[in-house]
Amino acid sequence: MFEARLVSSAMFKKILDAIKDLLNEASFDCSESGIQLQAMDNSHVSLVSLTLKSDGFDKYRCDRNLTMGMNLGSMSKIFKCASNDDTVTIKAQDDADTVTFMFESKKQEKISDYEMKLMNLDQEHLGIPETDFSCVIKMPSAEFARICRDLSQFGESILISCTKEGVKFSTSGDIGSANIKIAQTINFDKEEEAVTIDLQEPVTLTFASTPLTNQVQLSMSDNVPLVVEYQIPELGHLRFYLAPKIEEDEN
Amino acid sequence: MFEARLVSSAMFKKILDAIKDLLNEASFDCSESGIQLQAMDNSHVSLVSLTLKSDGFDKYRCDRNLTMGMNLGSMSKIFKCASNDDTVTIKAQDDADTVTFMFESKKQEKISDYEMKLMNLDQEHLGIPETDFSCVIKMPSAEFARICRDLSQFGESILISCTKEGVKFSTSGDIGSANIKIAQTINFDKEEEAVTIDLQEPVTLTFASTPLTNQVQLSMSDNVPLVVEYQIPELGHLRFYLAPKIEEDEN
Amino acid sequence: MFEARLVSSAMFKKILDAIKDLLNEASFDCSESGIQLQAMDNSHVSLVSLTLKSDGFDKYRCDRNLTMGMNLGSMSKIFKCASNDDTVTIKAQDDADTVTFMFESKKQEKISDYEMKLMNLDQEHLGIPETDFSCVIKMPSAEFARICRDLSQFGESILISCTKEGVKFSTSGDIGSANIKIAQTINFDKEEEAVTIDLQEPVTLTFASTPLTNQVQLSMSDNVPLVVEYQIPELGHLRFYLAPKIEEDEN
Repeated sequence: MFEARLVSSAMFKKILDAIKDLLNEASFDCSESGIQLQAMDNSHVSLVSLTLKSDGFDKYRCDRNLTMGMNLGSMSKIFKCASNDDTVTIKAQDDADTVTFMFESKKQEKISDYEMKLMNLDQEHLGIPETDFSCVIKMPSAEFARICRDLSQFGESILISCTKEGVKFSTSGDIGSANIKIAQTINFDKEEEAVTIDLQEPVTLTFASTPLTNQVQLSMSDNVPLVVEYQIPELGHLRFYLAPKIEEDEN
Repeated sequence: MFEARLVSSAMFKKILDAIKDLLNEASFDCSESGIQLQAMDNSHVSLVSLTLKSDGFDKYRCDRNLTMGMNLGSMSKIFKCASNDDTVTIKAQDDADTVTFMFESKKQEKISDYEMKLMNLDQEHLGIPETDFSCVIKMPSAEFARICRDLSQFGESILISCTKEGVKFSTSGDIGSANIKIAQTINFDKEEEAVTIDLQEPVTLTFASTPLTNQVQLSMSDNVPLVVEYQIPELGHLRFYLAPKIEEDEN
Repeated sequence: MFEARLVSSAMFKKILDAIKDLLNEASFDCSESGIQLQAMDNSHVSLVSLTLKSDGFDKYRCDRNLTMGMNLGSMSKIFKCASNDDTVTIKAQDDADTVTFMFESKKQEKISDYEMKLMNLDQEHLGIPETDFSCVIKMPSAEFARICRDLSQFGESILISCTKEGVKFSTSGDIGSANIKIAQTINFDKEEEAVTIDLQEPVTLTFASTPLTNQVQLSMSDNVPLVVEYQIPELGHLRFYLAPKIEEDEN
């Protein structure tokens, strides 16, 4: 028996929004410690890694380790039927070939059950070595998403370079070239800021970004993947690992 | 001479929105008592019946009975040109082959005339027998529309079953199955409620639903069409009659 | 060296919105007195003329006359990356084959550079004779845009006729015919009004209209193009010259 319950479905909806265009399907590994997802995106450019800790849930029970292969398009369709403040419960039998998503409205007057067929997916769990990054940038995720969206219109890959003064995002394509410079914030009241740490390290990234939570953290080092990380309050995090492009036929 | 006038075009716009995707064209039967429309939808699944009583209009004159065949797509285009608080006047000569829609702005500074060609449509007026229903459900139409929209993503037909405790809407399809249960409201301040009367009666319905007015009423009995009714304040009602599906090749 | 700076990019964005569907590309003629654009629209029905005076800019420098051929689609893509309250600076070298658009956020913490390739465009500068118009109409541009949009659904060309009492816009097509009458405003508080001057002059126009600024001015005379003019506060104006249709195969 597996059962995981969250009082608000909003965070789950956001997570699905952030990954559903990158992944058609994915395996959710459920254990006593929580839910783990790890998958290469459809274009095999980035690795998506989601960690949701069991103690972040309002109720969590996992009698036996369980791997559930889900179609993320279908899952996303189902979560569109939930209101943001619905309680969501994910349920499955130990040997189940279906998973059930139950949405309960605040006043309990509406209860929706969606039973979704599970898939058998090939699983290859990649070991991701812990790296000390030579550069870690924190910035508002909405700003990061806007920059990625703006620049993706002008070129296929975005070059990030970082100095103490700030971060520069660049691209070029048929129309011409584009550069966006974000200065490191000196004074700030709230943590809507841009922090940058030593060493200038150019990295090339291509991916779709979503403002999942308020802050995003970019971690970079020479010749290792860029890590784009969104903290999920209390539950864990969603990380995108983006292999740097080989600087060859770049324009 | 036919002339019907409503101080606000909003209700007419809503009615057109609710039927324009179901019907390409329809005959409006105008008589001294009001305007009547009855037509099978494009897919021949449901019967649409609209009644607008003459005394609900701000001005109404019908010298001779008149049947006007209208293209609802064109009519809907025309009503899109009206603001919600425009006065609308529908005018036709007794032997006309056109109908005129006149929209007057509140302050009278803008007057728009749209003259639309009429069509000759085959007419078959179906006699709809009055039925005593074993189950009548009243619920907020927005909630009903949301449920129809949510479930229609997962299956082609929606099964409604009703007990004293509440109503259950179900469907199933390739992705899996879905059930939404709405409890009967015990205490309520406003009439945004769900009332359910005796006898459990499963009915299968497929149709597009629009929140035309605040409340919708579902009337059901064994082996008779489900009636989905929206009251149109002062003017009459819009009803959809949905023949129950034969329980044969259902999945 | 050419450099023109505006504290807010909003007006430039609006101008681009108003012309980008009419023109694929256009030459911007820059001189000491300002920026001038003149081009026939894609369908060769109307002449677009834009004048931006140098003293309306917050900073303006033009060492040598410069003609820059720009793809308006690309330019519009670039300006979509600017926020409305970003400062915009347009920069080019004297013999440049690129132009740079720089957007600076209010607090200067974000600076974006877009370098766009210029195009070689055939230039034919049409002399537009000054005309005394027998009829000049001023009206709210949002109302004018709405009328053009509404009527364009019913016919390809819009006939404007004007008397002391008001203006009539008409069209006809497959569905039927449409007339919209706007009365001259007698009393008004704000300049959201409709003024009409002598002589009744029917003119036929076809074009896409955008509410660029609050007021639009229509100037008409027999057998000369209709002029649709939007004042751009402090900077100049945007004019559309629309040749009257020959009244031949009109329906």
